[in-house]
Amino acid sequence: MESAQRDTINPMLRVPFSELLAAFERALLANGMEPARAHLCATIFAETTRDGITSHGINRFPRFIQAIHNGSVQPNADPTPFATFGAIERWDGNLGPGPLNARTCTLRAIELAKQHGIGCVALRNTNHWMRGGTYGWLAADAGHFALCWTNTLANLPAWGASEAVLGNNPLVIAIPRPGKPGENSPHVVLDMAMSLFSYGALSNYAKRGEPLPFDGGFDAQGNLTRDAAAIYDSMRPLPIGYWKGSGLSLVLDMLGAMLSGGRSTHEIPNDMARESGISQVFIVIDPSNISTTTELARIADGILDNLHAAHRANPDKPIRYPGEQTITLREENLRLGIPVDPDLWKQVQTGVF
Amino acid sequence: MESAQRDTINPMLRVPFSELLAAFERALLANGMEPARAHLCATIFAETTRDGITSHGINRFPRFIQAIHNGSVQPNADPTPFATFGAIERWDGNLGPGPLNARTCTLRAIELAKQHGIGCVALRNTNHWMRGGTYGWLAADAGHFALCWTNTLANLPAWGASEAVLGNNPLVIAIPRPGKPGENSPHVVLDMAMSLFSYGALSNYAKRGEPLPFDGGFDAQGNLTRDAAAIYDSMRPLPIGYWKGSGLSLVLDMLGAMLSGGRSTHEIPNDMARESGISQVFIVIDPSNISTTTELARIADGILDNLHAAHRANPDKPIRYPGEQTITLREENLRLGIPVDPDLWKQVQTGVF
Repeated sequence: MESAQRDTINPMLRVPFSELLAAFERALLANGMEPARAHLCATIFAETTRDGITSHGINRFPRFIQAIHNGSVQPNADPTPFATFGAIERWDGNLGPGPLNARTCTLRAIELAKQHGIGCVALRNTNHWMRGGTYGWLAADAGHFALCWTNTLANLPAWGASEAVLGNNPLVIAIPRPGKPGENSPHVVLDMAMSLFSYGALSNYAKRGEPLPFDGGFDAQGNLTRDAAAIYDSMRPLPIGYWKGSGLSLVLDMLGAMLSGGRSTHEIPNDMARESGISQVFIVIDPSNISTTTELARIADGILDNLHAAHRANPDKPIRYPGEQTITLREENLRLGIPVDPDLWKQVQTGVF
Repeated sequence: MESAQRDTINPMLRVPFSELLAAFERALLANGMEPARAHLCATIFAETTRDGITSHGINRFPRFIQAIHNGSVQPNADPTPFATFGAIERWDGNLGPGPLNARTCTLRAIELAKQHGIGCVALRNTNHWMRGGTYGWLAADAGHFALCWTNTLANLPAWGASEAVLGNNPLVIAIPRPGKPGENSPHVVLDMAMSLFSYGALSNYAKRGEPLPFDGGFDAQGNLTRDAAAIYDSMRPLPIGYWKGSGLSLVLDMLGAMLSGGRSTHEIPNDMARESGISQVFIVIDPSNISTTTELARIADGILDNLHAAHRANPDKPIRYPGEQTITLREENLRLGIPVDPDLWKQVQTGVF
């Protein structure tokens, strides 16, 4: 869930949201992105950073600009539909910016859901969507449920394999909850990769010389270990639930590639700087014609109240739902400024990537 | 995946499929189920046992009959739609037999998918569907993709909780693959609960006095353990991927209850003999209007060939996809007879439950 993706290295600088947005926008304009697109793309990077998902916000921004430089991302390409039938559509991302393509396809799936109750857009030839939660929050803010996922380059061994043949294929499931007037809506947004720990998390643990809280993968000798550096080196992180996460990752890749007619994990360039041409699926459900917001809120509140009331394993640690802390952190960061790494912030401001 | 659910205690008797089917059918008729329904329900129990998922086939049959006796399952109730809009429908299961309700709703979702490209049926007030894979295979045999899940009674602690407030909420994802003429189709069917080990598996390890291959839960003192008996007693099995599986279980329950207007896990009677009135979702995708079987087969074969070619962690252990061994096992069991526990087989034959 989103909280698990937060970077654990303390940033030392807080900058206002408007300055962060403006700096991203300037950099995108300087790298050839058209103005309206640059504003939208910068907004996604700034909001992701604002919500505490720094790893897919400012920390990922230099690599995004480098992907424009090396041609993996076409800054001004738009996605186009190429096969449609009723509530399901295939779109081609034309290698445009992943966040813009994913946003367009989520909005299109929302339109299809409004017309048909449920809608599905399968997108091929796109690029990394950055924070998957972005598209879950987008659908939930419109009052819809969403199930979205993406494939990735090979970075996760299948169960029983000693080399990475699967992607970590993040899966997003969003549950809309109506907010109180004037308040942000406390949607439930699950955003989880199929690896137990991301390479970013492994790298942070390794830098701090701290053991992982659980076995996170295999070392070079094939032994399960909590040594993050050993797993980073062996490239054998664990799928969630061992054989189960391996199976789930495989079927998400199959669905993504088969529904979109696009690339599967084994066809995606196995180089993080050139990962491109990936496949994604966006399923949105509009409940408004078969239910009421009152009924939906009653059921959701009942489930979450029951979760919160459960006996805690540790009395000092509240039990949270996925995305629960997002609104609080968002408000805190908007009030105090968005935490960023000072060197990275200098880089984004100077625009040299 | 399905292979992980197979019972590990060696049965000592093999019976022909036709005898197994006839015995189930007789027992269902004797317990008041109408003839056509009894045949269909018996077929599902027999096919589940034939495919090696004994835990949800013959081993579960006595409890199914007991649920008819105690009124949790209404043997002759049919599900009925009560809210429909385009490609999405809400059905009420009227507490009918879970396998029959789930079959009807899968077939209805297939119809909706044929009309709209994608279809969704949300089912409330139903009962345990037994083997979830049944509905995945049903959709895949018709050439469709399926995503289905169910909630359950509370049997899994949320991450951070010391008591079970979540269900293990099995999730089924089916990928259709066209078979060679005259051959069974080698569909990919993932059928996985959100707990790493089922209570059935824990019980089998405990009976054999064997340690689990991985930490499977917490003991009464809150320590992670491989001691199956200790986990069975503490009722604190681990969700797959710790906090991740906990989040996934929660959102599947929310989707199930909110889309169907039915019960969520905390509202389901917390007694295995009386688990009733649960919620399920059936999403089916018909790819035939946006793709071709040639294209779909090419992509699927590419992914699975790549999986099979991966370097093995253990040279003697092939890397499998979910459901890969089902067809082989099915053919073997049809040829040699279906393995059953002799005492249980006697019970089903005599019809005293």
